[in-house]
Amino acid sequence: MRSEKDTICAISTAQGMGAIAVIRLSGEAAIAVCEKIFRPAKSGKQLANQKANTIHFGSIYDGEKDIDEVLVSLFKAPHSFTGEDIIEIACHGAPYIQQQVLQLLIRHGARLATAGEFTQRAFLNGKMDLSQAEAVADLIASRSEAARRVALQQMRGGFSNELINLRTQLLNFITLIELELDFSEEDVEFADRSELTKLVTNIESLLRKLVNSFSLGNAIKNGIPVAIVGHTNAGKSTLLNTLLQEDKAIVSDIHGTTRDVIEDTINIEGITFRFIDTAGIRTTKDKIESLGIERTYSKITNATIVVLMLDVNDPDEKIHEAITDVKNRLDTDHQQLIVVINKTDLLPEEGVNARFNKAEFRELTGTDAIIPISAKHSTNVDALSSELLKTVNLAAIDNDEVIVTNVRHYEALQQSHEAILRVVNGLETGISGDFLSQDIREVLHYLGEITGAINTDEVLGNIFKNFCIGK
Amino acid sequence: MRSEKDTICAISTAQGMGAIAVIRLSGEAAIAVCEKIFRPAKSGKQLANQKANTIHFGSIYDGEKDIDEVLVSLFKAPHSFTGEDIIEIACHGAPYIQQQVLQLLIRHGARLATAGEFTQRAFLNGKMDLSQAEAVADLIASRSEAARRVALQQMRGGFSNELINLRTQLLNFITLIELELDFSEEDVEFADRSELTKLVTNIESLLRKLVNSFSLGNAIKNGIPVAIVGHTNAGKSTLLNTLLQEDKAIVSDIHGTTRDVIEDTINIEGITFRFIDTAGIRTTKDKIESLGIERTYSKITNATIVVLMLDVNDPDEKIHEAITDVKNRLDTDHQQLIVVINKTDLLPEEGVNARFNKAEFRELTGTDAIIPISAKHSTNVDALSSELLKTVNLAAIDNDEVIVTNVRHYEALQQSHEAILRVVNGLETGISGDFLSQDIREVLHYLGEITGAINTDEVLGNIFKNFCIGK
Repeated sequence: MRSEKDTICAISTAQGMGAIAVIRLSGEAAIAVCEKIFRPAKSGKQLANQKANTIHFGSIYDGEKDIDEVLVSLFKAPHSFTGEDIIEIACHGAPYIQQQVLQLLIRHGARLATAGEFTQRAFLNGKMDLSQAEAVADLIASRSEAARRVALQQMRGGFSNELINLRTQLLNFITLIELELDFSEEDVEFADRSELTKLVTNIESLLRKLVNSFSLGNAIKNGIPVAIVGHTNAGKSTLLNTLLQEDKAIVSDIHGTTRDVIEDTINIEGITFRFIDTAGIRTTKDKIESLGIERTYSKITNATIVVLMLDVNDPDEKIHEAITDVKNRLDTDHQQLIVVINKTDLLPEEGVNARFNKAEFRELTGTDAIIPISAKHSTNVDALSSELLKTVNLAAIDNDEVIVTNVRHYEALQQSHEAILRVVNGLETGISGDFLSQDIREVLHYLGEITGAINTDEVLGNIFKNFCIGK
Repeated sequence: MRSEKDTICAISTAQGMGAIAVIRLSGEAAIAVCEKIFRPAKSGKQLANQKANTIHFGSIYDGEKDIDEVLVSLFKAPHSFTGEDIIEIACHGAPYIQQQVLQLLIRHGARLATAGEFTQRAFLNGKMDLSQAEAVADLIASRSEAARRVALQQMRGGFSNELINLRTQLLNFITLIELELDFSEEDVEFADRSELTKLVTNIESLLRKLVNSFSLGNAIKNGIPVAIVGHTNAGKSTLLNTLLQEDKAIVSDIHGTTRDVIEDTINIEGITFRFIDTAGIRTTKDKIESLGIERTYSKITNATIVVLMLDVNDPDEKIHEAITDVKNRLDTDHQQLIVVINKTDLLPEEGVNARFNKAEFRELTGTDAIIPISAKHSTNVDALSSELLKTVNLAAIDNDEVIVTNVRHYEALQQSHEAILRVVNGLETGISGDFLSQDIREVLHYLGEITGAINTDEVLGNIFKNFCIGK
């Protein structure tokens, strides 16, 4: 049986070979387990007697066999990440050695940590609330500036503080309302209804804002899905390569480091755009081929932004057909169309203006976002980047507003928003205190779920299973 | 221009996402550079004023923008790995964050370390000699118990101490001999020739032992090449799978960790065996097919051990032919033959003994190593493992004898052994002091190359370029 009293251990650095690797131990016996296998270079220097936050050089031994030279870092409860005693062993980064040290620790009384168990202990020991703990995982998984920024803010409690504040105010009111219920025969009102209305209206507007922030938060966390559609020869892959190159150039001058290259994911000013792979479309009368084209168009439904790519040299008929096809499939409420006119390099100097009547073309496409580019020569590709960024509320990020990125939070916020709307209506229609109390309790419940003030083993299990081991 | 005075930085943990990552800074300005981007959680706590070997919690800032919460470890010259001031920043393990912190350090005056530059500085600052520095890389690259053990011993100076000892004794003698040369007209002998003969004979025997240890050292470091040959249906791949499974079982109960799976590399009791991929052979009269079979046999030349795999149910003629084919291609001085008789599960109870006359079969194959197995049922596969291990001098490893694993050392040792042989002969034939001195100088030179007492930028460059960055 696993217990929260166990001393746990795990490799906390990335898998594979590195110069060094860090193995972390946490729990009541962390120091004692480490003492069994660690001999400090300065003899007689017992770890348990050392000050917290100090580093000690020495060797790991398996009985009389020396395994590696290491640095041991010592943290003492409660002033540590988990709130427990923590030992971090920095050994040489051979995976073989990491395994040897880990197995030794397990043989001497530690057990392997489950995913996210260090962070779970930090939560259980009151070092952070649940939404902060979740932000730790988001921070580690962040792949863009915006994702990092939102996760760090959440980890620091920006989100929690707002919720805890709301919850405390509501709790005060509910105490008064429930007191009224105890004295219900006397028909008193302890809770000032106009004060309550003011508070509840504030909360409703705040919760609405938080719920609405999720579409941005989700875009930040998972990237904004973009579909590029166009005829096979319109230059789709040239454009993608151009965008990818500009993205890569930012990091390519840092030698000796690799980044995960995920094809067709591009960071523009800290925002990730995910380019959905669509096959090129082809004008055809053939029935089977039409089905394939239909499949391409169906992928548009998953995109927030649809980029229609046209070849400036194509005949009007072909261009009009493509525009009509895309427009017919677009959900204009939730999807944004950007029209890119490619291969301007092949036009004479008068350029696109001579080729198209601007006003007419706008009417035809139904969008102002019409961008002539040459993907091949990287001409005006910046304008496309800016247009993509326009779909994102960058101001919210820049102002460090609270942005909800987590589906679990989003769902709980939706539920609490629905409940608070019932409270608002109830106050307007003057419903009785016991109904009011019930709805407020529901709001409190959902807000408490987010911060973890209310939690179940199942909820915790679901949250931490998605962490990496070692955190 | 890169300079040894620069403050260098690099990510020292494995590439990719982990719970944490460690970024290392070394050099005169390490603390100052870190102060520019680090704000300790306890305000007013200047890093420069803190004790060595202490850990500090705080945040990394890019101007007013906070990047991450981190732990900063502080080491002070000369009591550090490099002998310089060292800062280690443990940040959250998102590759994106690692890059941000690294770029910040570079912007504030550090430069990216070249491969092995931290270890190179440790060497240049006298913290270790060259053979110890090389052992650091070997330790990080070690994939087996024997490789780890030999590298650790070398890193701790086991090898260097022997060489330095020899060199000191030789240096004493050469001083005396060269003094003789100054007084050559007076025909005196300051250096006692019988003492010198004793020392030189000792050195010769030690150097010979070191040179000879390289075949074991190379096997430990790079694995022992084994070729399995046999007819296509003899069960070669079943045997490999059985061996691989037994090897993997050792680590598979440690969850959450992966090891690099290199097909057909198997660890048996700490020793790595590399199985060379050979196509199955087929009896044929066809000329073109014969060429293919010849190609298979040619791979045998790279193997230290050749495992001939026979199917116990094959007709005598087919078996005899395979034995003859392999024996004709075997270099019995340097290669060991093991005959495996597979599919014993398909035989009646009397088994292999009834099928083959033992003595006759030994004569036929020319080896005692005849092992009946059932690869399919893992029967007697242990006997094969033991037979493979017999080719390795495990006693030398167990006794922590000095084992040369490095080609550079091997070559220098060979040269110094040749020179010392000339000294031995010279003493026997009573050659003049100036020739003696020249040969001893040569021995000293090559021994000095190993420890780095004698080195050039080119030699250093070649050694450290094979390190990983961050070490």
